[in-house]
Amino acid sequence: MDTVVTALRSALDDQDGTLVLTDPSVLDAARTDKSGWTAPGGPVAVVESRTVEHVQATLRTCTELRVPVVPRGAGTGLAGGANGTEGTVVLSVARMDRIVGVSTEDEFAIVEPGVLNGDLNAAVAEFGLRFAPDPASAAIASVGGNIATNAGGLRCVKYGVTREAVLGLDVVLADGRLISTGHRTVKGVTGLDLTALLVGSEGTLGVIVGATVRLVPIPAGEPATLGAVFPSVESAARAAALVVTGADRPSTVELLDAAALEGIAAYLGPDVIAQTVGSTAAGQVFLLVEYDGPGATEAALGAAPRLQSEGGTVHLAGSAAERERLLTIRRSFHPAMEARGRVLIEDVAVPRSRLAEMFARVEAIGQEYGVAIPTVAHAGDGNLHPNFVFAGDEVPPHVWQAADAMFRAAIELGGTLTGEHGVGVLKRRWIGDELGDDVLELQRGIRRVFDPAGILNPGKVF
Amino acid sequence: MDTVVTALRSALDDQDGTLVLTDPSVLDAARTDKSGWTAPGGPVAVVESRTVEHVQATLRTCTELRVPVVPRGAGTGLAGGANGTEGTVVLSVARMDRIVGVSTEDEFAIVEPGVLNGDLNAAVAEFGLRFAPDPASAAIASVGGNIATNAGGLRCVKYGVTREAVLGLDVVLADGRLISTGHRTVKGVTGLDLTALLVGSEGTLGVIVGATVRLVPIPAGEPATLGAVFPSVESAARAAALVVTGADRPSTVELLDAAALEGIAAYLGPDVIAQTVGSTAAGQVFLLVEYDGPGATEAALGAAPRLQSEGGTVHLAGSAAERERLLTIRRSFHPAMEARGRVLIEDVAVPRSRLAEMFARVEAIGQEYGVAIPTVAHAGDGNLHPNFVFAGDEVPPHVWQAADAMFRAAIELGGTLTGEHGVGVLKRRWIGDELGDDVLELQRGIRRVFDPAGILNPGKVF
Repeated sequence: MDTVVTALRSALDDQDGTLVLTDPSVLDAARTDKSGWTAPGGPVAVVESRTVEHVQATLRTCTELRVPVVPRGAGTGLAGGANGTEGTVVLSVARMDRIVGVSTEDEFAIVEPGVLNGDLNAAVAEFGLRFAPDPASAAIASVGGNIATNAGGLRCVKYGVTREAVLGLDVVLADGRLISTGHRTVKGVTGLDLTALLVGSEGTLGVIVGATVRLVPIPAGEPATLGAVFPSVESAARAAALVVTGADRPSTVELLDAAALEGIAAYLGPDVIAQTVGSTAAGQVFLLVEYDGPGATEAALGAAPRLQSEGGTVHLAGSAAERERLLTIRRSFHPAMEARGRVLIEDVAVPRSRLAEMFARVEAIGQEYGVAIPTVAHAGDGNLHPNFVFAGDEVPPHVWQAADAMFRAAIELGGTLTGEHGVGVLKRRWIGDELGDDVLELQRGIRRVFDPAGILNPGKVF
Repeated sequence: MDTVVTALRSALDDQDGTLVLTDPSVLDAARTDKSGWTAPGGPVAVVESRTVEHVQATLRTCTELRVPVVPRGAGTGLAGGANGTEGTVVLSVARMDRIVGVSTEDEFAIVEPGVLNGDLNAAVAEFGLRFAPDPASAAIASVGGNIATNAGGLRCVKYGVTREAVLGLDVVLADGRLISTGHRTVKGVTGLDLTALLVGSEGTLGVIVGATVRLVPIPAGEPATLGAVFPSVESAARAAALVVTGADRPSTVELLDAAALEGIAAYLGPDVIAQTVGSTAAGQVFLLVEYDGPGATEAALGAAPRLQSEGGTVHLAGSAAERERLLTIRRSFHPAMEARGRVLIEDVAVPRSRLAEMFARVEAIGQEYGVAIPTVAHAGDGNLHPNFVFAGDEVPPHVWQAADAMFRAAIELGGTLTGEHGVGVLKRRWIGDELGDDVLELQRGIRRVFDPAGILNPGKVF
């Protein structure tokens, strides 16, 4: 493997050794992401590209030498899609992190892929604009990674997924050619929509080196936030369905099941929840509903009786501090789970009408396999994140069996393996169950059109 | 060509001759669409499929015999994409027009492709829902055609294009296999996004035989509608830019240039415009701005001074009848043009910040080539529909030359050939100018993956 390192150093003209890295700690860090999965082997090099030309030279070299390449951004993925596996070159675009330009009149930004979602939002906030996608990892996730996984987030229920926010892409193909797709216009239908195809392609079709992303106005006024506790997950799911349909569209609808709420209560101390929503009884379920924009308060006041009609004890935040306390309950979910052990975060989605049923399935699966599965859902999207909590470093077999049962349940209810995290390595074994052979064959065919030598992210997705 | 007709009749078991049509008037009608372009030759048969099996049998037969197939819906396209050309079989799905199901809780409808956009909207209105895409042809255009062209419309500026409204598709491939793509969930990222790829593919990848489409709530309350006249297209374009950015998002922003407004005044009688916006001076330009949902009236009241600041004479509709009069001005554009002669309707889009410049280019091109080009723009999207008005049945060479100059101007300003109508036959000669050779090669490669024999809509798009 010295050959590829030598060839890359020469191709990138890496005279001071800052581009083609082979330091063991760097290689080791590139084996993992935020899913907790670490590749059993490791990459031979990490290329820290600073320019489009670096990306082109790396891909040209690796195609020539038939060395597999793993494109990588900030490394915050949750499916192992950017993890450097045995014998690969990890091609990082994390250092390509400039905001190239912002047009407030056309409401778009031109960015390099490594810019963090949170940094882009901070930069455009002064113009009253934001990048709509808001994965929970926004502060640490890169826009290129958001695009490569078609990231979702809490606000999707009102503002859509990342695909809707991408107007055009600059992409380096496996053989080193640079292409541009899409437009700087909101509309445009010239030929096949390669931009949409590349969004969510998880590094299997090309390496995103630039993006023109839509910016949307930050809603006027203060949001109106409701917290409610329910006696059961069924009643909370029904309440969520009541408020998410209709003309007033909430910007956030988050459901924490009883196991999740108990974990958070233990983590924050039970008083925090009691002070906020006036209850700490065991078995209760928490629903967070937020409205923004004109009429937010009226919408929240209109939602309260609908939540109550399903047995909810409802609290409307009366101040920014009260709102913050409600949001803290939701935000404490992941830290609370991590305080309990190792966590496998899953990501199924079902039609909203099947949400209560899916919660019941998850609970039954947890009991059957003897594993705790506290679950949070972006309830407005039917997107559940069951968190499989376990001891030890490796995901134990019975947890994988439970996850397997859960994926099958989601598909059976008309849903999908992954609402927003992607397939990566971790969901690869189930992709055929969802897509079927014919669709999978088409997808592999498209991949071959983009990357005939098959060097891009092998062993991921397909 | 008797062979294919005989083979189709047998494959479809068409005992009473109602499926495989060869009547000259039927064949003739299938040669054209609403663009005004008629294919020089004509198809050998029109298959009026009623079922998915009919579509499968037709495609299987045509792949075997290597006979080209032109998929067709309601025939309201504006780029010749569904026109039956010489020696083809036109595969119509117009009679597959059932609404299979509606889920109000999940806010989607499952439809056959031939259902008309307007009929779908009428059927779901009782639930307070609608299908967001609203091409001007909604009353006569099919949902399958909306999807095949990724149709836009007047409300896109706020509600997005058709792609955002499609969750999943059932598609028959060229060899007769039936595949399903996408989900019944709003989120879902399992594998490449074939649904988005198929939207806007203009019948070149497969034949859409079913769709799961999103429904969105009809905004509450009455819309608030402003009409304004401006002394110049530049001032109107600047005014449009002022109201389309910011937190209050209009649902419609339509700009009619001076030539368009003069034509409408002549068509409706000058009093109609004078009564509505209090002015009929020559050279004036009309802007229609509408807000919907909560805060619509406040938003319109806030927009009025911004329109005035650019020299606009502004009128806020005070009643449903007044609103109707303002909308009538916009709606009369196409009838007014058709009253003047034959019309070639074009469809370029540019970044909003270049809208005034593009209007100036269109005007200059009209003068240079001696052709009248009244233009309406979906100003919020930067999407212009220049209408080339000419005498006689065929588009004269100097009109094509003017169109050519206009396409090049749009691309030069960072825009696109087609914002919402598609490439079809009529824009095919310019597609390479916009996409470039590498992207075109990828698109052709994808097409071969779906249709190795190349029978689907040959001579269209690529």
